[in-house]
Amino acid sequence: MSALLPASLAFAADEATPAQLQGAIDAVWVMLAAILVIFMQAGFALLEAGSTRMKNAGHVAGKTVLTFGLCAIAFWAVGFGFAFGDGNSFFGTTGFFVDGTEEQAKAAFGSLSASDVPIAIKFLFQLAFAGVSLAIAWGGFAERGKLAVYFIFGTLFTVVIYPIVAHWVWGGGWLAQIGMQDFAGSTVVHLQGATAALVATLLLKPRIGKYNKDRTPNLIPGHNQVLSVLGVIILWIGWFGFNPGSTLSAMNDGFFGYIALTTNLAAAAGAVAAMIVSWMYFGKADIPSMLNGVLAALVAITAACAFVTPRDAVIIGAISGILTFFTAQWFEKAGVDDPIYAFSVHGIAGIWGTLSTGLFATPELAAKVGVGKAGLFYGGGLEQLGVQALGIFGAFLFVLILSFVILYLIKATIGLRVTEEEEIVGLDLSEHGSYGYPEQMKKAAHGSAATTV
Amino acid sequence: MSALLPASLAFAADEATPAQLQGAIDAVWVMLAAILVIFMQAGFALLEAGSTRMKNAGHVAGKTVLTFGLCAIAFWAVGFGFAFGDGNSFFGTTGFFVDGTEEQAKAAFGSLSASDVPIAIKFLFQLAFAGVSLAIAWGGFAERGKLAVYFIFGTLFTVVIYPIVAHWVWGGGWLAQIGMQDFAGSTVVHLQGATAALVATLLLKPRIGKYNKDRTPNLIPGHNQVLSVLGVIILWIGWFGFNPGSTLSAMNDGFFGYIALTTNLAAAAGAVAAMIVSWMYFGKADIPSMLNGVLAALVAITAACAFVTPRDAVIIGAISGILTFFTAQWFEKAGVDDPIYAFSVHGIAGIWGTLSTGLFATPELAAKVGVGKAGLFYGGGLEQLGVQALGIFGAFLFVLILSFVILYLIKATIGLRVTEEEEIVGLDLSEHGSYGYPEQMKKAAHGSAATTV
Amino acid sequence: MSALLPASLAFAADEATPAQLQGAIDAVWVMLAAILVIFMQAGFALLEAGSTRMKNAGHVAGKTVLTFGLCAIAFWAVGFGFAFGDGNSFFGTTGFFVDGTEEQAKAAFGSLSASDVPIAIKFLFQLAFAGVSLAIAWGGFAERGKLAVYFIFGTLFTVVIYPIVAHWVWGGGWLAQIGMQDFAGSTVVHLQGATAALVATLLLKPRIGKYNKDRTPNLIPGHNQVLSVLGVIILWIGWFGFNPGSTLSAMNDGFFGYIALTTNLAAAAGAVAAMIVSWMYFGKADIPSMLNGVLAALVAITAACAFVTPRDAVIIGAISGILTFFTAQWFEKAGVDDPIYAFSVHGIAGIWGTLSTGLFATPELAAKVGVGKAGLFYGGGLEQLGVQALGIFGAFLFVLILSFVILYLIKATIGLRVTEEEEIVGLDLSEHGSYGYPEQMKKAAHGSAATTV
Repeated sequence: MSALLPASLAFAADEATPAQLQGAIDAVWVMLAAILVIFMQAGFALLEAGSTRMKNAGHVAGKTVLTFGLCAIAFWAVGFGFAFGDGNSFFGTTGFFVDGTEEQAKAAFGSLSASDVPIAIKFLFQLAFAGVSLAIAWGGFAERGKLAVYFIFGTLFTVVIYPIVAHWVWGGGWLAQIGMQDFAGSTVVHLQGATAALVATLLLKPRIGKYNKDRTPNLIPGHNQVLSVLGVIILWIGWFGFNPGSTLSAMNDGFFGYIALTTNLAAAAGAVAAMIVSWMYFGKADIPSMLNGVLAALVAITAACAFVTPRDAVIIGAISGILTFFTAQWFEKAGVDDPIYAFSVHGIAGIWGTLSTGLFATPELAAKVGVGKAGLFYGGGLEQLGVQALGIFGAFLFVLILSFVILYLIKATIGLRVTEEEEIVGLDLSEHGSYGYPEQMKKAAHGSAATTV
Repeated sequence: MSALLPASLAFAADEATPAQLQGAIDAVWVMLAAILVIFMQAGFALLEAGSTRMKNAGHVAGKTVLTFGLCAIAFWAVGFGFAFGDGNSFFGTTGFFVDGTEEQAKAAFGSLSASDVPIAIKFLFQLAFAGVSLAIAWGGFAERGKLAVYFIFGTLFTVVIYPIVAHWVWGGGWLAQIGMQDFAGSTVVHLQGATAALVATLLLKPRIGKYNKDRTPNLIPGHNQVLSVLGVIILWIGWFGFNPGSTLSAMNDGFFGYIALTTNLAAAAGAVAAMIVSWMYFGKADIPSMLNGVLAALVAITAACAFVTPRDAVIIGAISGILTFFTAQWFEKAGVDDPIYAFSVHGIAGIWGTLSTGLFATPELAAKVGVGKAGLFYGGGLEQLGVQALGIFGAFLFVLILSFVILYLIKATIGLRVTEEEEIVGLDLSEHGSYGYPEQMKKAAHGSAATTV
Repeated sequence: MSALLPASLAFAADEATPAQLQGAIDAVWVMLAAILVIFMQAGFALLEAGSTRMKNAGHVAGKTVLTFGLCAIAFWAVGFGFAFGDGNSFFGTTGFFVDGTEEQAKAAFGSLSASDVPIAIKFLFQLAFAGVSLAIAWGGFAERGKLAVYFIFGTLFTVVIYPIVAHWVWGGGWLAQIGMQDFAGSTVVHLQGATAALVATLLLKPRIGKYNKDRTPNLIPGHNQVLSVLGVIILWIGWFGFNPGSTLSAMNDGFFGYIALTTNLAAAAGAVAAMIVSWMYFGKADIPSMLNGVLAALVAITAACAFVTPRDAVIIGAISGILTFFTAQWFEKAGVDDPIYAFSVHGIAGIWGTLSTGLFATPELAAKVGVGKAGLFYGGGLEQLGVQALGIFGAFLFVLILSFVILYLIKATIGLRVTEEEEIVGLDLSEHGSYGYPEQMKKAAHGSAATTV
């Protein structure tokens, strides 16, 4: 009851124990983090819409809401149990249809019991992560995937791909057991989504007009950089939930603040490095490249944020910005039409970020977090680097194979891609029956046809 | 002082009592919730602007800021006292011009004393709700209401409509006394705003061009689905303040997290259900319909979020999505031009959500919240359903009559609607003297006139 | 580790002391505030992009991300130490390259020790303020400054301008010692940024087409009021971090809530006052003027929020809205082409807000905050007003001179302004090689040339 707090809800404050108070603080913090990460759906919707063409804008933005809805229900019914339920080293077997009670929490989610955050909030936080991974995957489907594919693949990714790898690393699975360091999911969230995007973009083939007969690529610029910028700022903000929230607690002398510091420094370094490198390479300071630099740096620091010093966070972020810039160029030239550069931004940077703790993890921070060991540059030798590489390889291979099988079956049955005619007219009309920008598209139709390809 | 915390502000931490610590936690939580709900103004501005035409976009978005400003001052001066001040069963009579002191809080707001949140934050949280109710009402005025009407009706709604019903349900009034369950305001906030919107849209009559001579409706598509999507995601996010924040506390073993879980599940189910039903009905998966499905589900779960199981939240949300879709079609065909579908989304779903606790409330949760009884499907018989129906009927009738009287008087004096010429040229020019999109509208004027109707 | 909280991170809750619990609450609150203030970068990006032309939109929005990145690194390396490190009355000399450890915090930041918030979060909160000040400054460079200037001036402003004045007022410097009241930075953040903007706009000279030969100004309307509105709502929301967060604590019986109340009332009054005054003056209710009124009121209440009553907050806000409206008109007529009205909104209102505590500060609140004395209208005589005036004068003069020297040197060497041809074609093409709105600009180029000036 909004204003009139009933007696049953009004805690007698004097009786609150330190454990109850800490529980409430931790719950507020993780709830805030979950909200920030769910808000990242807006960031992805804007970034993807801004980076594609006007004729597809309503579709691109709208499908984000739809698929987050699908993901929310599928992860609640099944995915969360596979990921965090008690089970074996490969997947969980308990905790389906999360009911929000502490009874179910205790019976089904032993691995989550170390934190005092209510199970409903833990679920929302983890759902937000699954939703981000799925939003990343959509980058590879952009501007040509059928709407029905979003329904099918979105559900299957949420149910049988994402939660399995999440279980391996965060649910007590085999990668957790060997000490893989992936604090907030450079591999679990970003590399997974990016790998699905890569498979999709390869199976879908390039967009009409992307490549010339001599295989040289054409630029298909996104229609609205302001939306892309807004999307990236929302994502940057969302990452303050993503990484610091992964402490699942506000205690520990504010360790979540330390993680926010390294996260922010990496993002900043990624922006500056990518802008400079694009200026040097193109002769013009390219804004989409800079935005990708921000995201790549955030992706990379996601694994490393709790394990490295602020100075090394700057280095990790700057390298991400540069690496993503050049790999994006390279993939484009190699004939891979990845419209939002999902694999460069989330895949390459996800790999780099996961490896980076094998180089930069300090012994103090590795001990503080309690996972794995120091990296090569801090006296840890090659051991942690090997664990990281194994984790990357395992996750990549698993998602590659499973995504390929699922998408190949869809392709063989209902088909993955809209028809040539539908693609030319745009997915707003073909999949939804109306333009996202009806007045502006009508004007375009009245004028030249220049904007329809 | 930002950095140099003066001695007087620096609490000696060791002395903080459990009650003070709980008070601080609860204050942070409700402050966060208030911020999220105030941010919903951006959601409504974007959704309403995106759902209307370019020639009205600056007006639609800008008036949201103006009227939230008006509402903030009027609710501070008068409305909050009418709603939550001590008084009788119909309205409060104390607590005008909130001064933020605990002295006034104790003297004037007895019904609020059960919560340990500072009165200034309680005020902001409740203001945010009043602002949402008003933003909903504006949907019915869209694309033809005079700017002056926004000034007058906005102030009166904030002062004499919204707070009265709020007092009935949340301020200890007659609906509170009979145990009406409306946890965060399906009736108090949403049905109220929607009823005012319905009265407005009926008195204003349909927009030029909406209906043909044979009374069949034409589609007047909104100009920017990307803005609409962004608006809906912001609203979804805002609802994590709206519903869970209505606990007014972060204690109770994280009950606010449970409410966030049911809220999120309902929204997800609404998205999926509305998308599927629109696909089946239109043959195309309509994005605006899906977005309405999300909002309708959120509206419905607003009353029920604390009283129902996660599974039932999915059911309530899915039914909302479907119900809103069909009622929106029905109202349109019946000659009611409700440009943003305010009455379908907030009214019909508000009624359904308020009734839903009479069906789905569990005895455990009703007891936990301490309001009303179990619903029909959980052994509670028809009693709670009757209370809910009475509350809906009372609130609807009161707002219907009062809105009608106020708007009728405005119509009879200064008039409600802009002239035909002004409507055709658009409210940006007629009410504000400049286009919201000057470069794009200039182009349109140079080209065809297709966009001006 | 997102889900599997390692033993080392899982606090034994029962052992948490009141001091640790308070530390965690305060940390969560200030982290939330920092996130809100960093989110203001999106507000500035949208407001500035919406208030300028389509041909510059990608540049305007994108450079916000770039320069926040530069600022984040420069402030971390140097600026924060100059501002808050121990040192003398003019600048700090310790605490460079913030490493996030409490060891450095204790050794280098004595003035910050009164608050129990972790140093990493204090840093992020202060960085967000520096970033806002810089974003304000950019208003004066809009639509004609070279990209390289953003790199150079952005870095130098972060390193040698902003932190010095911050040290004077918040780092224990000479203005702190004489009791200057500037709770969250009307002078420190807003007047500083606005003064740099004024110097820039004077040195850059007006945009092509802004003035006729007879020196009368032309209106160059911004291209998208919806983006401007969204920007302003985000800024309004951000201010709930800016002002209330400057308590650096959630304790003190919810004093941060009181500050949120005064802040919100001022903003509301600014919106209404500016709308009415523009309606009276222009005969049309001008939306950009109203938005400026909101911001001006927020700027003014920034100094005063903790020192004044809610009623006086309304007065301060309303006066700001009016003052900014008329000074914006006056500067425009006087030949100062300040595209975003940065000096009127942040400078004039910053001065007025800083002076306002010298009029309206109550003895109780001045004592509660522990800085300065009551204002003229509350029995404090002219003393506090004099202190405020001196602080304004000192800060203004310092920023004026230093900005002038830096920008003059840039002008004399690489130049401040793009060429006439580049300005006409737009900064998206000239500085970045591609339009922010490629499809819409292409259409414009195919149609009339009307949009290129």
